[in-house]
Amino acid sequence: MSTILLTGFAPFNRETINPSWEVVRRFADQTIQAAHTSHTSHKIKVAELACEFGTSITQLQQLIDLHQPELVICIGQAGGRPDMSIERIAINVDDARIPDNVGAQPIDLAIVEDGPAAYFSSLPIKAIVQALRAQGIPASVSQTAGTYVCNHVFYGLMHYANTQPGIKRAGFVHIPYLPDQACHHPGAASMSVETLEKAIKLLLETCLIQNQDIRLSAGTIC
Amino acid sequence: MSTILLTGFAPFNRETINPSWEVVRRFADQTIQAAHTSHTSHKIKVAELACEFGTSITQLQQLIDLHQPELVICIGQAGGRPDMSIERIAINVDDARIPDNVGAQPIDLAIVEDGPAAYFSSLPIKAIVQALRAQGIPASVSQTAGTYVCNHVFYGLMHYANTQPGIKRAGFVHIPYLPDQACHHPGAASMSVETLEKAIKLLLETCLIQNQDIRLSAGTIC
Amino acid sequence: MSTILLTGFAPFNRETINPSWEVVRRFADQTIQAAHTSHTSHKIKVAELACEFGTSITQLQQLIDLHQPELVICIGQAGGRPDMSIERIAINVDDARIPDNVGAQPIDLAIVEDGPAAYFSSLPIKAIVQALRAQGIPASVSQTAGTYVCNHVFYGLMHYANTQPGIKRAGFVHIPYLPDQACHHPGAASMSVETLEKAIKLLLETCLIQNQDIRLSAGTIC
Amino acid sequence: MSTILLTGFAPFNRETINPSWEVVRRFADQTIQAAHTSHTSHKIKVAELACEFGTSITQLQQLIDLHQPELVICIGQAGGRPDMSIERIAINVDDARIPDNVGAQPIDLAIVEDGPAAYFSSLPIKAIVQALRAQGIPASVSQTAGTYVCNHVFYGLMHYANTQPGIKRAGFVHIPYLPDQACHHPGAASMSVETLEKAIKLLLETCLIQNQDIRLSAGTIC
Repeated sequence: MSTILLTGFAPFNRETINPSWEVVRRFADQTIQAAHTSHTSHKIKVAELACEFGTSITQLQQLIDLHQPELVICIGQAGGRPDMSIERIAINVDDARIPDNVGAQPIDLAIVEDGPAAYFSSLPIKAIVQALRAQGIPASVSQTAGTYVCNHVFYGLMHYANTQPGIKRAGFVHIPYLPDQACHHPGAASMSVETLEKAIKLLLETCLIQNQDIRLSAGTIC
Repeated sequence: MSTILLTGFAPFNRETINPSWEVVRRFADQTIQAAHTSHTSHKIKVAELACEFGTSITQLQQLIDLHQPELVICIGQAGGRPDMSIERIAINVDDARIPDNVGAQPIDLAIVEDGPAAYFSSLPIKAIVQALRAQGIPASVSQTAGTYVCNHVFYGLMHYANTQPGIKRAGFVHIPYLPDQACHHPGAASMSVETLEKAIKLLLETCLIQNQDIRLSAGTIC
Repeated sequence: MSTILLTGFAPFNRETINPSWEVVRRFADQTIQAAHTSHTSHKIKVAELACEFGTSITQLQQLIDLHQPELVICIGQAGGRPDMSIERIAINVDDARIPDNVGAQPIDLAIVEDGPAAYFSSLPIKAIVQALRAQGIPASVSQTAGTYVCNHVFYGLMHYANTQPGIKRAGFVHIPYLPDQACHHPGAASMSVETLEKAIKLLLETCLIQNQDIRLSAGTIC
Repeated sequence: MSTILLTGFAPFNRETINPSWEVVRRFADQTIQAAHTSHTSHKIKVAELACEFGTSITQLQQLIDLHQPELVICIGQAGGRPDMSIERIAINVDDARIPDNVGAQPIDLAIVEDGPAAYFSSLPIKAIVQALRAQGIPASVSQTAGTYVCNHVFYGLMHYANTQPGIKRAGFVHIPYLPDQACHHPGAASMSVETLEKAIKLLLETCLIQNQDIRLSAGTIC
C-alpha cells in the first residue's frame, strides 16, 4: 500500500483558521482508491505546516522522509480567489508582503541558493481541472503561487522531490476562504468545507488514475 | 398561522438552472418558527417567477392575492457577486442589457407610470446581514438591484405591498451562482446550495423576530 | 449669458487631493459654447464643496442662490472605478462607512425628512456616455452613487433643483483616482487629469446640445 | 554610443491598436541619457513584433543581431491591468487561451525544448516600480506574464540574452489598455498614451542609472 502525503497550513495574517488545514485534517489516516473498481488502496497521511519561511520546508522534508509518499500535495489558502486553483509553477524567490508567523519577511531571496529559477508541478493539472469541473466544482490552472510561504513550500517540495526517487508526483493547490472567513473580508469569494472536501478527494483520485496529463487550454493572456 | 411568500426565478441568459429557484423550492410548504421557543408557526409558500418583464410582476401579484402573505421575499441570481446581497432599494426604471426570456428589452421605461422614483426594502436589512455573518455566512447590503428583471420585480413588489395592508414586510435578496454554474464562468464566486438554504432560513427567522432594524454601518462610499 | 455651476469636493479619507476639484478648478470662470457654430456662450462657475454631511448641501444651495445656474453638475471621486461614471439616481439615505471630514458618521438617516425615496438625474446620461465613448473616453451609467457624502450632495442637489425653477438640468458624475493617487492603492484604476478635463468639457457640451436623452442600453443585470 | 532595443506588439484579439506599439513608436531613433548631468547618450531602436508564436521570437533575435543592444525591453498589452506591470519571470510554456494572429494555439508546449523552467528578468524591477511611483505613475511587480505570446517573447528574449554577451539587461513590461480601447471593455482600466510615454522614459532612465536593484517588498501572498 503506497502513501499519499497531504499538507495544510497554520492560520496566518490574523486569521484564526486556515481552510487548507480544516479540509486536510478530514483525510487523516484515511485510505483511498483510484476508482471504485480498483483493488489498490493508498494510505493518506496529513500534517499542518507552520506558516514560516524555512521551518515549513524543513517540516515537509521530515514528513517525506518519515512517510516515504509516492504522491505529495500541499494545500494553501488563497484569500479572495473564487475556485480550486491548481498551481502550475513554483519560482525560486521569497518576497514577503507581510511578515510570516515568526516575524520573518525575506525580500528577493532565493529559496534554494543556486537552485533552478522554477519547477513545474508534476501533477496532472489539466486533468484535475477537468475532473473538478465535471463534478460541478469551480477550478482553474494558476500561473503564480505568489512569493510568500505557499510558493516557498511549493518550491521546496519540488526541489526535494527531484532528489527523492520515491516521489512520483508532487504539486500545490490554492483554495478559497471558508464562508466564515469571508464574513470578515467584504467582497471576498468563499467555498464551503464540504465542497472543498469533495474537491480534494476528486483531486487525489485524478492523480492516481491519470498517468499523464490531458491537453486542455487553461492558460492566460497575461 | 400566517403565510410567508418566497419566490425564485426561472433560469435566464443561457443558464440551465437559477440558484434562486434551486434554494427556494427546498422550502415548499414548510413551516417555520421565529425561534425555537416560539409557539407561532408560519407557513411558507414558494413559487418560480418567469424571467420576463411584465409577466413576472403579474405572477407575483396573483400569488400575493392567493396566499395573502404577511412577509414576501423575492430571491434572484446575481452572477458574480460573492455573498448574500440584501437589497436596500428598488428603482422605477427598466434598462435591460440583454433581452428577457421572451425577447423583450425595455430601455429607460418606468416600471410604474407616475410611480415614485424608488422604494426602500421594508425588511430589517442590517439585522439580516448581522445574523447571517454571525452564523458564518458572507452577507452585505447592496445599494443597487440593477435595472433588469430582478429590480423590476422588486419595484413591482414594493409598489403592490404599499397598497396591500396585509403585507407587513417585503424585500429582495440577490444570491451568488451555484458552484456548478461558476464552472462555466471563470473567476466567478459561488455559494453551495446547502449554505444558501441555511442562509434563507436565517433570513426568514430574522424577519420574524426583528421588529425593527438595527443600526449597523453597511453603506458604500460610492 | 446663462451660468453653469460645476463643483468638486475637498480631499477625504486620508487623500491629500481630490481629483474632482483638481479637474473642476481648471474650468474656473471659463465660458463654453454648445458647439463651435453656436453664438451662445455659457459662463462656468466652480466651487469646492466640503466633504461633510449637511455642510456640503448648505454650501451647494448658497452657490445656486448666488449664481442662479441653469445647469448644475457635481463631480466626486470614486476611488477604484475605472471610468467616467454618470450617476442615474440619488437615494434618500446616509449610511457612512467612514466618518466625514468633521467626524460625522450618520447611519440610515434620511437626507430630507419626508423627501421622496430617490431622484433621477435630469442630465442626458445616455447621450453623455455615448459622446464620451465616441471621443475615446471610457464611460458608463452607474446605478448607485453610494450612501456617503457624494450621494448626499446629489440628493440635496436634486431636491433643491425641484424647487428652483431656474435650474433646467442637474446631476452627478463620479470620476476615477488620478494616477498619483492610484500609486498608493495597488490594483486601483486611474485617469489622467488631461483626460478628465477633456471628459468634463464634452459632458458640458453634451448637456447644452442634447435637449432630450437618447435611447441606449446602459443598465446592469444586477 | 550604446543601443537600447524597445519593442511593442501588433494588435491582437480583435483590437485595432496595441498600446505597446503606440507608445514604443514614439521613441523611434531617439537618444536618451541616464540623467540630465550624464554625458553618455544611448540610441533607441524600436520595432513592432508580430503577435505570433515562433515568428515573434525570430523577429526579436534578428533585431538583436542587427542592433547589438545593451538593453532590451519588450512591452506588451495587458488588457484589464490598471498599472505599469513590471514582469519578474518568464516561464517555459505556451498555453494559448485564444489563437494567435495566424491561428496557432499551442497548448502546454515548451518554448525552448530542454530550456530551463523559467528565467528571471534582469531589469532592476523594484527600482523601476519605485521610480515610477515617485513620479506619480501607478506601477507594480507582476509574478506572471501569462502563457500567451507576451510570455513567449519574454522567455525567448531571456534565453537569447543568456547566450549574447553584449546584452547587459533584458526584461518585459505589461501596460494597460489605452482609454480608447477601454471604451469597448466596460469595467477595464486604462492609461493615457502621454502617461505611458512618460513611464517608458522613466523606465529606461532607471535601467541606465541603477547598477543593481533595490530592496523593496513587492510580492504577493498568492
